[in-house]
Amino acid sequence: MNQIKLFCPATIANVSCGFDVLGLCLESVGDEMLFEKSAEKGIRIQEIIGADLPLEVEQNVAGVAALSLYEELDPDFGVDITIYKNIKAGSGIGSSAASAAGAVFGVNALCNYPLSNKELIYYAMQGEALASGAPHADNVAPALLGGFAFIRSYDPLDIISIPTPSELYATVIHPQIELKTKDARSVVKQNISLKKAIVQCGNLGGLICGLYNSDYDLIGRSLHDEFVEPIRSLLIPNFDELQLAAIEHGALGSGISGAGPSVFALCEGRKVAEVVAKAMKEVVRGADYESEIHVSPINSQGIKIIS
Amino acid sequence: MNQIKLFCPATIANVSCGFDVLGLCLESVGDEMLFEKSAEKGIRIQEIIGADLPLEVEQNVAGVAALSLYEELDPDFGVDITIYKNIKAGSGIGSSAASAAGAVFGVNALCNYPLSNKELIYYAMQGEALASGAPHADNVAPALLGGFAFIRSYDPLDIISIPTPSELYATVIHPQIELKTKDARSVVKQNISLKKAIVQCGNLGGLICGLYNSDYDLIGRSLHDEFVEPIRSLLIPNFDELQLAAIEHGALGSGISGAGPSVFALCEGRKVAEVVAKAMKEVVRGADYESEIHVSPINSQGIKIIS
Repeated sequence: MNQIKLFCPATIANVSCGFDVLGLCLESVGDEMLFEKSAEKGIRIQEIIGADLPLEVEQNVAGVAALSLYEELDPDFGVDITIYKNIKAGSGIGSSAASAAGAVFGVNALCNYPLSNKELIYYAMQGEALASGAPHADNVAPALLGGFAFIRSYDPLDIISIPTPSELYATVIHPQIELKTKDARSVVKQNISLKKAIVQCGNLGGLICGLYNSDYDLIGRSLHDEFVEPIRSLLIPNFDELQLAAIEHGALGSGISGAGPSVFALCEGRKVAEVVAKAMKEVVRGADYESEIHVSPINSQGIKIIS
Repeated sequence: MNQIKLFCPATIANVSCGFDVLGLCLESVGDEMLFEKSAEKGIRIQEIIGADLPLEVEQNVAGVAALSLYEELDPDFGVDITIYKNIKAGSGIGSSAASAAGAVFGVNALCNYPLSNKELIYYAMQGEALASGAPHADNVAPALLGGFAFIRSYDPLDIISIPTPSELYATVIHPQIELKTKDARSVVKQNISLKKAIVQCGNLGGLICGLYNSDYDLIGRSLHDEFVEPIRSLLIPNFDELQLAAIEHGALGSGISGAGPSVFALCEGRKVAEVVAKAMKEVVRGADYESEIHVSPINSQGIKIIS
């Protein structure tokens, strides 16, 4: 194989009660990345279409991730990368993770798949570290594994795939305001009451059981976040109205996607997800910012080979 | 049906990372309770064999639980209860819960099962409130439902049964020191770091996934408690040595049973559980307190009808 083109999906990290431990993979929105073998050793980013991002490997999320794996595998060829960026940077649906996960998948593919997708997560995390200051896995893991990916532990890295109910859809609205991940992280309180922690544990366990049992009502009852949403949501315009509109129009639950500003809702069935999308759109009609809305099944496969 | 005799199992609440949200049901240790219809209306506790506990209904855990259900169902007969107490009070393996759960099961049975076992949990919790000052469900729920019972929420009460891997065994050692639940609760810190809360979420999710997937290693990796074990364990003599002995002899993990002082280990297979029991016994040899050790499969049924 001398070249490969990939679809690199967007992802929703945290998923309310899964703060810092859970992420899910989307189907309908993502980047594309082209990887070509080259005689000259090393990683090169040839072109980035659709975003103004650095081509220098060490300053680019995809570059850093690709390089960390490339140095590990040390193949006797180089890799040229072209990125077709569709996921907006700073949207909170894993734009950097799509690049990082795609980068390691592509390098691994050109090397004939010496590592499993699970083993690639570590290398993709190196790219994430550049983007957000912390090598978190809750976007790159679902991008690489598909479905819901649960991070039991970072040290050692221990990641579990959780089954996805077949009728589960996500609606995501991206209010195009600037909200940097680092800023969104800085408002998080570093201490919480034991009582809230237990409520979070209850909801997280409920969500996981709901996913295993395809119990949509239980999934909905569990989608609450005690840890960060109460504060972080203040940074997102119209958050309360968006969440309320989603619930009132049949969503199972709704919360902040990753560090925001995107707001997601989970729904049973595409029809409900589309009704919810319409209701969310209505909330932001006339707002002084642009919005983008996605309706997507949960992507159970993760990164896909286009050609 | 004019009388029914029940086996009312012991239970392990918390299960390390499941602090206040999880409990499991034991098979090999429990009380027996006899319920007889009587022409005279009301609840009466006729006799308690094996323990020095009050016969007055309002001062007895079984009495309070039975009465709360009896008043709800309002049958045209009375119920006489005889309790054969095998689970020692204050052991931390759900002695009061066995009585409370048994009481509501017995009354419901004599009334011809108008309520499901899940619906009975609320009434059993009224008995628990008398025992520990809080109407907690993490012992009565597994006693009534069997297996692992997960409490997503108390308000509203939302309890989920989690599958039990078939080869999962528990070893429990009860060091016979006095450690009141109220005291064990008073040492719990009311605030924790977000970091620890996230670690706990990771392990709780890991444990639940491990149970669904019958992944014994994952269950073992997840059995850690950030919330209370580090402090509460200081109240339990030889806790560190017991835990270490369990792990060194093949246990998947080990922790405090409920509010202690019992210490449990989960094991894959009866053989390992018995080796672990022997190792724990060795730790307390020569100690200035008596100990009792139980080896038990997880009881997937809960309360059983003996006759």
